[in-house]
Amino acid sequence: MRLIRFCKGDAPARLGLLIGERAVALSELIADAPTGTRDAIARWSDLAPQLTPLLSAAGAEGKGEPLAQVRLLCPLDATEKMMAIGLNYADHIEEMRGSGLTTPSEQIWFSKQVNCLSGPFDPIEHPRASEAVDYEVELVAIIGKGGRHISAADAPAHIFGYCVGNDVSARDWQMKTPQWVLGKSFDTHGPIGPAIVTADEVGDPHALDIRSYVNGELRQNSNTRHLVFDIWAQIEELSKVMTLKPGDVIFTGTPGGVGAAFKPPRYLKPGDVVRCEIGNLGAIENTVLAES
Amino acid sequence: MRLIRFCKGDAPARLGLLIGERAVALSELIADAPTGTRDAIARWSDLAPQLTPLLSAAGAEGKGEPLAQVRLLCPLDATEKMMAIGLNYADHIEEMRGSGLTTPSEQIWFSKQVNCLSGPFDPIEHPRASEAVDYEVELVAIIGKGGRHISAADAPAHIFGYCVGNDVSARDWQMKTPQWVLGKSFDTHGPIGPAIVTADEVGDPHALDIRSYVNGELRQNSNTRHLVFDIWAQIEELSKVMTLKPGDVIFTGTPGGVGAAFKPPRYLKPGDVVRCEIGNLGAIENTVLAES
Repeated sequence: MRLIRFCKGDAPARLGLLIGERAVALSELIADAPTGTRDAIARWSDLAPQLTPLLSAAGAEGKGEPLAQVRLLCPLDATEKMMAIGLNYADHIEEMRGSGLTTPSEQIWFSKQVNCLSGPFDPIEHPRASEAVDYEVELVAIIGKGGRHISAADAPAHIFGYCVGNDVSARDWQMKTPQWVLGKSFDTHGPIGPAIVTADEVGDPHALDIRSYVNGELRQNSNTRHLVFDIWAQIEELSKVMTLKPGDVIFTGTPGGVGAAFKPPRYLKPGDVVRCEIGNLGAIENTVLAES
Repeated sequence: MRLIRFCKGDAPARLGLLIGERAVALSELIADAPTGTRDAIARWSDLAPQLTPLLSAAGAEGKGEPLAQVRLLCPLDATEKMMAIGLNYADHIEEMRGSGLTTPSEQIWFSKQVNCLSGPFDPIEHPRASEAVDYEVELVAIIGKGGRHISAADAPAHIFGYCVGNDVSARDWQMKTPQWVLGKSFDTHGPIGPAIVTADEVGDPHALDIRSYVNGELRQNSNTRHLVFDIWAQIEELSKVMTLKPGDVIFTGTPGGVGAAFKPPRYLKPGDVVRCEIGNLGAIENTVLAES
């Protein structure tokens, strides 16, 4: 299933499913529907059996709105944590070597602060304070069942689903101190979507084509099979430290081709359109907008 | 005023004020009282004028519970962000030089993930995965009025209040990669409290004695006047990047005397009691407990 949040005109945001080319509110499909994404994720084992029979054309017939008539919002209305792993594709490690970064023997985790969470078609702010705004397409995992000390073997059962993310990075801020978090956390610098596709529908998350484009020009082009540390190892490592919770967001790394790696660098400027697409998850597309 | 969360026995947690030596629920004092801390902070300009006249002995007479009969909980039930600044007292920079750390020309920000938020008298977990658990007493600022691009001059008006915090750090995890966040974010490693003391009652936050003790032995002993980057500069810097929100938590740096700086290091072990106290904010006291 494809969990979305959407709105039509000025109406309030609704949590729903993308069924074919229609956005259908959960409240149109079932009684006592959750309104918050994390609540839906936490209740998914009860909700899924109710929703599955409704997915056929007959079940959802006439329900919802044509996708073209709604606006897709960030599929998560809130989250506790956004963790992200750095230097996790060999070709990206190679291209960043000039910045003093080398192949890590340990998983390098940083955080994106929750203020940067943003929608699949929302603008990316080009902040006044940065002159080096960059893109990073990433497969994003959304935690379903929380927990601590989750082994790699058990990790798949803890994933609710996946979506596309852009780990937008202000490189000047990322590199001006040893800690990356500020450069990774500008408002709007964490767009995800378009839907959270449940894990059963994604299949093997380590076999997905992953690409980004700037103004239609292909910049990143890889496959998630090239992850250095796979998603199961990531969950194992993170959960040694922190209790993972339903709706937590994990950015799993970006392949080569980021703007910083060009000589000279090709950073984003206002008006640029960044498209990120992954396998059967769909695409997000965000326009860079100068901070007012 | 001193905003607290507390419970008595198995009763649900309540938001309240510490009045003298009594814990008084907001719902005992005013109608339509907020139940969440961030809601209270956001509504504070309306609430404060109602609460102030009730603070005298007569106003709160007979209300609430003796402090000795309740348990104080983390004064924040939730928050969006916990940001922390590193290497922000000269004596702490000096003692960490051996670890390759030097005086920063820029503010070095890292995050503590929200899962580590904990109460003023809750146990500190000694994780199975770490052999280098350390303490760091810090003055903690709680954002009142949110915003972006807040100048240092305007920053005081954006602070709701202050409390004591312990930026508990798993040094082995902090140092095994260049990014500190995992070592700073183990569950329970962010105790704060005992109350959030409103800014008007604190006076000058840059003139507070700050101390930590382990098993009664004084380990850190300084004054917040020795901050390298003061709190106003911190707010200015953070808000260049991110929209600050009511209830956001800012750890403002720790003075010299941490366990890692001893030769050999004096890390915490199960059973140790860490007490952190600051000026007129009170003290938090947390016992180290082996992870089960």
